[in-house]
Amino acid sequence: MADDLSDTRSVQPFASRFAEARAKFGPLVFGLDPSGPLLGAWDLADDADGLDRFVDIAVGAAAGTVGIVKPQAAFYERHGWAGMRTLARLIDEARSAGLLVIVDAKRGDVGSTNDAYAEAFLGAGAPFEADALTVHPYLGLAAMGAFIARASESGSCLLVVTRSSNPEGRDVQGAATDSGLSVEAGLLAEIARLNRELTADEVGPIGAVIGPNPALSDLDLPAARAMFLAPGVGAQGATAHDVAEVFAACPERVMPSASRALLDNGPDPARLRDGVAAMAVQFQNLLRR
Amino acid sequence: MADDLSDTRSVQPFASRFAEARAKFGPLVFGLDPSGPLLGAWDLADDADGLDRFVDIAVGAAAGTVGIVKPQAAFYERHGWAGMRTLARLIDEARSAGLLVIVDAKRGDVGSTNDAYAEAFLGAGAPFEADALTVHPYLGLAAMGAFIARASESGSCLLVVTRSSNPEGRDVQGAATDSGLSVEAGLLAEIARLNRELTADEVGPIGAVIGPNPALSDLDLPAARAMFLAPGVGAQGATAHDVAEVFAACPERVMPSASRALLDNGPDPARLRDGVAAMAVQFQNLLRR
Repeated sequence: MADDLSDTRSVQPFASRFAEARAKFGPLVFGLDPSGPLLGAWDLADDADGLDRFVDIAVGAAAGTVGIVKPQAAFYERHGWAGMRTLARLIDEARSAGLLVIVDAKRGDVGSTNDAYAEAFLGAGAPFEADALTVHPYLGLAAMGAFIARASESGSCLLVVTRSSNPEGRDVQGAATDSGLSVEAGLLAEIARLNRELTADEVGPIGAVIGPNPALSDLDLPAARAMFLAPGVGAQGATAHDVAEVFAACPERVMPSASRALLDNGPDPARLRDGVAAMAVQFQNLLRR
Repeated sequence: MADDLSDTRSVQPFASRFAEARAKFGPLVFGLDPSGPLLGAWDLADDADGLDRFVDIAVGAAAGTVGIVKPQAAFYERHGWAGMRTLARLIDEARSAGLLVIVDAKRGDVGSTNDAYAEAFLGAGAPFEADALTVHPYLGLAAMGAFIARASESGSCLLVVTRSSNPEGRDVQGAATDSGLSVEAGLLAEIARLNRELTADEVGPIGAVIGPNPALSDLDLPAARAMFLAPGVGAQGATAHDVAEVFAACPERVMPSASRALLDNGPDPARLRDGVAAMAVQFQNLLRR
């Protein structure tokens, strides 16, 4: 019976689980990026033990305050296998506390290798079982069959980096493909096509990472039938108003993510929680439909 | 004194360490890709223990037979943190046995995150201290300052996926940038510029991954002053003659890599070793200057 219930939960699509979390806490994603300087600012050792303490404090502050957390894998991998063990524990404890977990790992390779990454991060029993995973498309979205199948079957979400939040990505992402579309617009069109094939729902399992930069040319976001991760709010320069402007046509599908701007309130748990709650309310109000 | 010696070794540039390995064993890279089916074919359990056994056999066969090994990180991450612990042990034992280690992880992100990945994989004391690391440029080569600085300082090599070995990557890699160059040609020109800035040597610390496909349009490979990783020989369809043809202008800078075609000879250590040695000799002969 317990198994049946967990099966039911596991096939509820990510978009629907996000909608529930959003109704309760707003759409904010709390980025868990324990860089060396951040651990230092929190008076924690820059080692696997300090990382473990960081996770205890951050997940404790997130639970009941926000709907989604997003650990950046690099800051865990930096501490070797012990750091990856902490990442696995973070995922497990956060999901047990009712949080959705986006693992920001930007994996991506040829097809047979993507099979292995998909097994690492998506679906029941994966060692780093995420609700959503970021991937990069440099080797082609068409090589991501295993990622897509697993996300679709397990009710998780594949977030394809389409337009990144940093300016250095423009050369590649804005280049013109044979179809005449830019790389990023071509990806979004392909995501739309796949989501239509995969589900009759309004939103499919393939999402996109879109840097919230109002100065860049328009992409047809609603047509993608996709969830959107909007990274880099706060310390990376994007404002909440930028997010509202860029996603004005589909505000209910965007997950704005902030890391440093929130973590700078720590390590005091009450201040950390207050900062997260305040930004969560701000986005809840700004991104109404 | 021991410290002084190891310092000297650590700043010998990768290209020079490769040239030594090549003179002895030829340029072949032995890809260590323990997929689920491969572990099964070797009668090993598809778990962290089976992975450990795989590493013992494969590194044992590689040492003294070939100059370079290339573990694909996905096949280790698939087994969670325990698999990543095995990857760290593989790297350590292979380097102790005199092998060069290319970690094929295709990491890449915004600048501040790339700092963390660089700390994970490059330079003395990194938890997964590699001689070379593959990275993907979807978020921009210009965001890779930390990777480049660490590779340059520690005598390691950053291998930027430029033209991948799979057909699904063409849309992105062949797209036209504002400069008029394709994404892949633009990257190669930028790698050339950076390598000229970084060193007066013939070959700099930034290399490129170039799928050995003679049917694609020419890239100016010698001008990049770079090492090249040519993946996908054998099971992925490229032949040794394809490698010789594509890199005819700089055969001494190419590292052809084969995985399944070699691993299929296992698990018998003698057969495995014989297969690796035979392909190593083939490439040594084909890629003479």
